[in-house]
Amino acid sequence: MSELRLLALASKVQVGRGDDLVAILLDALNDAGEGLSHHDLLVVTSKVVSKSEGQVVDFDGTEDHKVALVEQESVRVLRRRGGLRITETRHGFINANAGVDLSNTEDGTAVLLPKNPDQSARRLRAEIARRTNVEVAVLITDTFGRVWRQGVTDVALGSAGLRPLLDLRGTFDANGRLLEATEVAIADEIAGAANLVLHKAAGTPFALVRGLDESFFGPGSIAEDIVRAKNDDLFR
Amino acid sequence: MSELRLLALASKVQVGRGDDLVAILLDALNDAGEGLSHHDLLVVTSKVVSKSEGQVVDFDGTEDHKVALVEQESVRVLRRRGGLRITETRHGFINANAGVDLSNTEDGTAVLLPKNPDQSARRLRAEIARRTNVEVAVLITDTFGRVWRQGVTDVALGSAGLRPLLDLRGTFDANGRLLEATEVAIADEIAGAANLVLHKAAGTPFALVRGLDESFFGPGSIAEDIVRAKNDDLFR
Repeated sequence: MSELRLLALASKVQVGRGDDLVAILLDALNDAGEGLSHHDLLVVTSKVVSKSEGQVVDFDGTEDHKVALVEQESVRVLRRRGGLRITETRHGFINANAGVDLSNTEDGTAVLLPKNPDQSARRLRAEIARRTNVEVAVLITDTFGRVWRQGVTDVALGSAGLRPLLDLRGTFDANGRLLEATEVAIADEIAGAANLVLHKAAGTPFALVRGLDESFFGPGSIAEDIVRAKNDDLFR
Repeated sequence: MSELRLLALASKVQVGRGDDLVAILLDALNDAGEGLSHHDLLVVTSKVVSKSEGQVVDFDGTEDHKVALVEQESVRVLRRRGGLRITETRHGFINANAGVDLSNTEDGTAVLLPKNPDQSARRLRAEIARRTNVEVAVLITDTFGRVWRQGVTDVALGSAGLRPLLDLRGTFDANGRLLEATEVAIADEIAGAANLVLHKAAGTPFALVRGLDESFFGPGSIAEDIVRAKNDDLFR
């Protein structure tokens, strides 16, 4: 019987530049009465990663300044409507407003995406392993809109220790026919699942995910496995 | 402590037209040693819904026939590449190949999407309540691609008893500022989460989801809440 469990890990710490995010995370785990085991996965919301890495800029609160920040964080604008921009970031992420975040930030500031979320995930994973002797997987997540469906969902920006795409090519179905939909974006499915237990307004920056199939763990990164190459893309 | 649990419910039954899907589902629950409680949610993959509703057509195995079926199921073709079509279905879903499914089907057949997945979900929910006296939420899910990210994820096609969009408008963040990303597509996040425990090749058509926040339950439908109106859409 396959069973998956997701637990929110709350923290009251207001993360700032240079803060020890792994210590804050391990405290939150401890407060929840949980330890870490092999094949656990930790979800870390990108905002606390950005804050700890100093990806915070002044923001004067005006729409003009917001648009300027968004365009500065973008390599290309795909669509404009009013103050809304759908853009491509340096990372290759396509999202509204380039992930520039004006909620849950200190007054007069905006939070940008981490510069290299895969690298941030690898660093967090290595540091967690150093302190706990457990090699968990780490996922850094943020909230993105979708093109043809209302509402936002959380997706993965960075990963370490997880295969972001579960490759089912060569797998046969119950009738012996090759499966069609062959690569499942489990990194994004895990990110969205974790968002179901997070209450961002109430300060819940982390989640613990337990019970993932062991085949999910391994090498890979969001930049290489999930971000779609421009020439594969029918809508850019 | 917010904790979410997802359990796969296996079934060896090959579902056919007119079969009692609720009986098959309740048998699978029983085999897993689980009962139903208030605020449980059941995920039902769309293929077994389609099969029980007779949404199965002959398929001669050729690429030409596949394309013909896809175009017949579509109201509009957005993009073409080789045999691939990105189309809009009658329901307003935009996906590769209009959800026409050639894997895990009987030889010589293809499975189409349910005609009205919200209605199917409502019917399943009512029938489960009639037999068990428990009003669970029901989600009918399928596998869709995404525009700018590699890999497929499961999304919700139909729902009953769940608010597909969690409306956070009017919610303030920890600093007293209004939250920006205001409507979370929890139906799709739950669908993707459930896919993490399903093993479709091995016959796992159902999942039980436990521990969702009670604010998630209520009225709504995928057609009304999730499918984006064409004039709201920047990419159609």
